[in-house]
Amino acid sequence: MKDAAPQAEILSQGEELLQGEITDSNAAWLSQRLVRLGFDVVRHTAVGDRKGDLVEVFREIAGRSRICIGTGGLGPTCDDWTAHAFAEAFSLPLELDMVALDQIEDRFRRLGRGMPPSNRRQAYLPAGAERLDNHWGTAPGFRAVAGGCCFTLLPGVPEEMRQIYLSAVEPELRRSFRCRPPPILILRTMGVGESQLEQNIASLGLPAEVGLGFRAAAPVVDVKLHFPAAWERQRMAACGDQVQGACGDGVVGRWFVGEAEPDPLQEIGTLLMACQHTVAALEGVSAGAIARLCQDRPWFLESLCGRPERLAEFRETTPSVWSDPETLVALAEQHRQHCGADYLLAQFAGAGEEVEFVLIGPAGRYSQRRRIGASGSRCQEIAAAWSLEFLRRELARSGCRSLKYGDRYSSERTTMENE
Amino acid sequence: MKDAAPQAEILSQGEELLQGEITDSNAAWLSQRLVRLGFDVVRHTAVGDRKGDLVEVFREIAGRSRICIGTGGLGPTCDDWTAHAFAEAFSLPLELDMVALDQIEDRFRRLGRGMPPSNRRQAYLPAGAERLDNHWGTAPGFRAVAGGCCFTLLPGVPEEMRQIYLSAVEPELRRSFRCRPPPILILRTMGVGESQLEQNIASLGLPAEVGLGFRAAAPVVDVKLHFPAAWERQRMAACGDQVQGACGDGVVGRWFVGEAEPDPLQEIGTLLMACQHTVAALEGVSAGAIARLCQDRPWFLESLCGRPERLAEFRETTPSVWSDPETLVALAEQHRQHCGADYLLAQFAGAGEEVEFVLIGPAGRYSQRRRIGASGSRCQEIAAAWSLEFLRRELARSGCRSLKYGDRYSSERTTMENE
Repeated sequence: MKDAAPQAEILSQGEELLQGEITDSNAAWLSQRLVRLGFDVVRHTAVGDRKGDLVEVFREIAGRSRICIGTGGLGPTCDDWTAHAFAEAFSLPLELDMVALDQIEDRFRRLGRGMPPSNRRQAYLPAGAERLDNHWGTAPGFRAVAGGCCFTLLPGVPEEMRQIYLSAVEPELRRSFRCRPPPILILRTMGVGESQLEQNIASLGLPAEVGLGFRAAAPVVDVKLHFPAAWERQRMAACGDQVQGACGDGVVGRWFVGEAEPDPLQEIGTLLMACQHTVAALEGVSAGAIARLCQDRPWFLESLCGRPERLAEFRETTPSVWSDPETLVALAEQHRQHCGADYLLAQFAGAGEEVEFVLIGPAGRYSQRRRIGASGSRCQEIAAAWSLEFLRRELARSGCRSLKYGDRYSSERTTMENE
Repeated sequence: MKDAAPQAEILSQGEELLQGEITDSNAAWLSQRLVRLGFDVVRHTAVGDRKGDLVEVFREIAGRSRICIGTGGLGPTCDDWTAHAFAEAFSLPLELDMVALDQIEDRFRRLGRGMPPSNRRQAYLPAGAERLDNHWGTAPGFRAVAGGCCFTLLPGVPEEMRQIYLSAVEPELRRSFRCRPPPILILRTMGVGESQLEQNIASLGLPAEVGLGFRAAAPVVDVKLHFPAAWERQRMAACGDQVQGACGDGVVGRWFVGEAEPDPLQEIGTLLMACQHTVAALEGVSAGAIARLCQDRPWFLESLCGRPERLAEFRETTPSVWSDPETLVALAEQHRQHCGADYLLAQFAGAGEEVEFVLIGPAGRYSQRRRIGASGSRCQEIAAAWSLEFLRRELARSGCRSLKYGDRYSSERTTMENE
């Protein structure tokens, strides 16, 4: 089955990659998109700012694969070699693209500045290449077939690269290549350990031809079911149901490769907008990671970040209360009323790696203690993901309640398996 | 000069990389280590779980470079091919390493479990290879010279890889290769565009043998000066001064490759701790990105995140004021007093991509409007970086002032070149 899919490669150009100054997020993002389309991505290559290396890699890839998406090296400076190296690799002249030049000049005009002469370089493309307009930056990309391989070269700035890819590259790949995504079902889980999942699923005795894979990236573990190409959709879905049953309440999303991943924030938003409820946060552990994800959402009011003892709102309270869940819930409720929000998400750092999560909503108050086995920004992200997951579960469970600050409060406390 | 440094490559093996499920942080980390040692890293390659691809890449690398550090593919499962592929590439038999087998069995014993038969596979190494003990996981790494290239193959789990690299690989590289860090000076700048920098530096007429490179990662542009190997430190520094002069006020840090990068948060912290001053933030645009960076710092009190009209503190004010800098400064001052902080960093979203930055401190109030040419999380990060840079500049300029909420306020307003 794999051999039927057209072979694809990712090429990244940038001395900063080889110096180890940045990780290559472009390669991962592009790979994921190509795999979903049904391409077989066989290699990633990164080279630096030496033109000769780039020339060599272009030729190697052309001898190996059907398509190549490349990023970087389209900037205005003397170490940006992509167009030159491509032209040299395949003995093509470079030609000034007047439309590209106009676009670049226009962008500088809109910024109220003249175009520096060096930016003119960006308007030269290999003969026969198709320009890919960049409405998000100065460097246009281009597409050209050479040595039997279809090359698409894009700027290295991730935002610009993604915008051009989504608007001009992926639609064309869909038209030009008749490939279909691999038959893989993904079950996203939270709160159940990888080995526990493996044990539960093993006990099902799935058919031997169903491949099983796991990918753990706290707080999430994805279970991947690779089905035989011949299986009908219905048969795959039934097998997925069986596995989902074995994962218990842990499954938070489920989709086939090639379909859109479920977006928990989207789901939360839809449920909240139905009843016009609002959310605020008190980020004692996630430290702004919730605000970062939600600030632009219409249902999100505000977030206060800081260790509780440092916050102006709570500075009078004694430090001894920070380990008592009841007091934390009361403080969170006080803050929810101050914000005028329907839901409040809060976390407080406890002893060791323990975090006390609090969720207050119109229908009740909940608190839960979890251990987060990570530090720094990973810990912040995991805490934010759990706070939002508690909200999602509560919204999905309670639906749209019209009462606000109601009289039906219940105090519920659960302790789930720690990661 | 570059040709004097031994050529190195990084190889990553893992289907999850080619599926785009994870970014290759190992390659970046290893690159940085090798560059600092003085190697010339010329290529990163990632391949998946097909043995044939791996065999081919091993041979390619041996024909090109002096050393190669590889990660991944040493696990116990059927898609872990590194040792097999290496043996095949260079026609070597695989041999059972009894010490490795003992270590693997011992690890399972300590976990209170028997060793699954599949893990025996991990104790086979290519003939002549030197085992690299893994005290942090089950898979040992190995080192072997083949085709004139010194290969070091390590497990893909970042923690295990780093531990083995630091304890057994880097010391050996230092012994075996007499190389020194490349003579590269980096000038980190903010607020001056890449092409503007290039133009200013070009006008200096630097000696032709000084190589010039740029790396733009908004809001920062790094200027890199590659010096001839024969130059004395003093001569390089003088040239650096000249370039720094051409970059104007834009330079925020300066260091040689191989030295530690300057850390602006560290610098801010040192200046603040000297006078025991504290900081709070009102993150209208950075949306928690300041809190994320500063929450654990002793000088950071709290951050309030949200669009001003949504914040409980300011909801009564009329929307018309949000475009008036004077009112914004007054609101920020009100919030600073509420928090009891010495410094307040604030941003407010204006029309288009414009952001109004406000900094209030004991010695004055400043506001500045900048355009941020990015959206989403990049925009948040750029806004946070600028807020912190304004604070750093103010602290560096004013030093440690003892007055608090003093009477020496000045109202200053600047408009700098937009990115």
